[in-house]
Amino acid sequence: MQRICVDMDEVMADTLAEYLHRYNQTFDEDITREELAGTGLWEIVPQDRQPQIRAFFDAVDFFENLALMPGAQEVLKDLSTRFEIFIATQAMVVPNSLGPKYRWLQRHFPFISCNNYIFCGDKSILRADYLIDDQPSNFLNFEGTGLLYSAPHNLTVTGYTRVDNWQQVAEYFSTRSS
Amino acid sequence: MQRICVDMDEVMADTLAEYLHRYNQTFDEDITREELAGTGLWEIVPQDRQPQIRAFFDAVDFFENLALMPGAQEVLKDLSTRFEIFIATQAMVVPNSLGPKYRWLQRHFPFISCNNYIFCGDKSILRADYLIDDQPSNFLNFEGTGLLYSAPHNLTVTGYTRVDNWQQVAEYFSTRSS
Repeated sequence: MQRICVDMDEVMADTLAEYLHRYNQTFDEDITREELAGTGLWEIVPQDRQPQIRAFFDAVDFFENLALMPGAQEVLKDLSTRFEIFIATQAMVVPNSLGPKYRWLQRHFPFISCNNYIFCGDKSILRADYLIDDQPSNFLNFEGTGLLYSAPHNLTVTGYTRVDNWQQVAEYFSTRSS
Repeated sequence: MQRICVDMDEVMADTLAEYLHRYNQTFDEDITREELAGTGLWEIVPQDRQPQIRAFFDAVDFFENLALMPGAQEVLKDLSTRFEIFIATQAMVVPNSLGPKYRWLQRHFPFISCNNYIFCGDKSILRADYLIDDQPSNFLNFEGTGLLYSAPHNLTVTGYTRVDNWQQVAEYFSTRSS
């Protein structure tokens, strides 16, 4: 059975929505997802706000109640009957996220065993056939096939197979045998 | 540079010492490491104590202050100059261990980046050249070379290259190029 590794932030969970919500609330701004096309929020905010936006992620409740990406549950549930599904998330730079991420997965994806969670940093450690991720750098030393999940910060990136949403993930794998 | 994955419990950390300490204290017993040769504590304790011994691991402080295996720091520090060192621990069945394990690694192995920690379940996900582990089952689907780190529960296991202590780990890699 072939193996698919799936990233959490910006792929399964709408981390950017929470990030923008906290940013706009804290600084009384109204930045939208559309305004971030081709960039990351961290790249456009003033230097003196950097420590505060970094602190958003370190807050113990940031990762606790992130919204689901539409279709993630349904498509992963279907794929899990034909593929081995592993969840691979770069949790180590934000250790406060470890517990919240674990609970979030248990709550929203009870059909995926906790034995298939990987909380890591460098994703070149993964041995899998596919990796669905919004960070192109995670594909550089990945030996399988990378699928770039669209997010505002990666919209200008080329050279990868791109999926814009979970419907497209389902379509991609519909013609592939496991 | 070749990559070595290293298990935590019973390889870097003396988890069994804490386990025996809590068991003996709770049940007013005096079981020693030597008495466990060829078996695991969980295999010899009466059935009615199983929920309690399982609860030892779930306690929020169990993994916080485990003793170091002698030589682990020195040998890993030396190996980290010639190999990529990753720490791979099956933390997911005991989610309360996630935070304590992270802090323990930061405290005792500051020369290993948190980007090289892998908190996982199924270790067949690891892509590495070597895996040092006390659980033979973790080698079954591992594509690299497994080194069985001796622990009471695995003393009768055969068929693997065995290392009894960190000095032997150092010797094993002394003749291997990275």
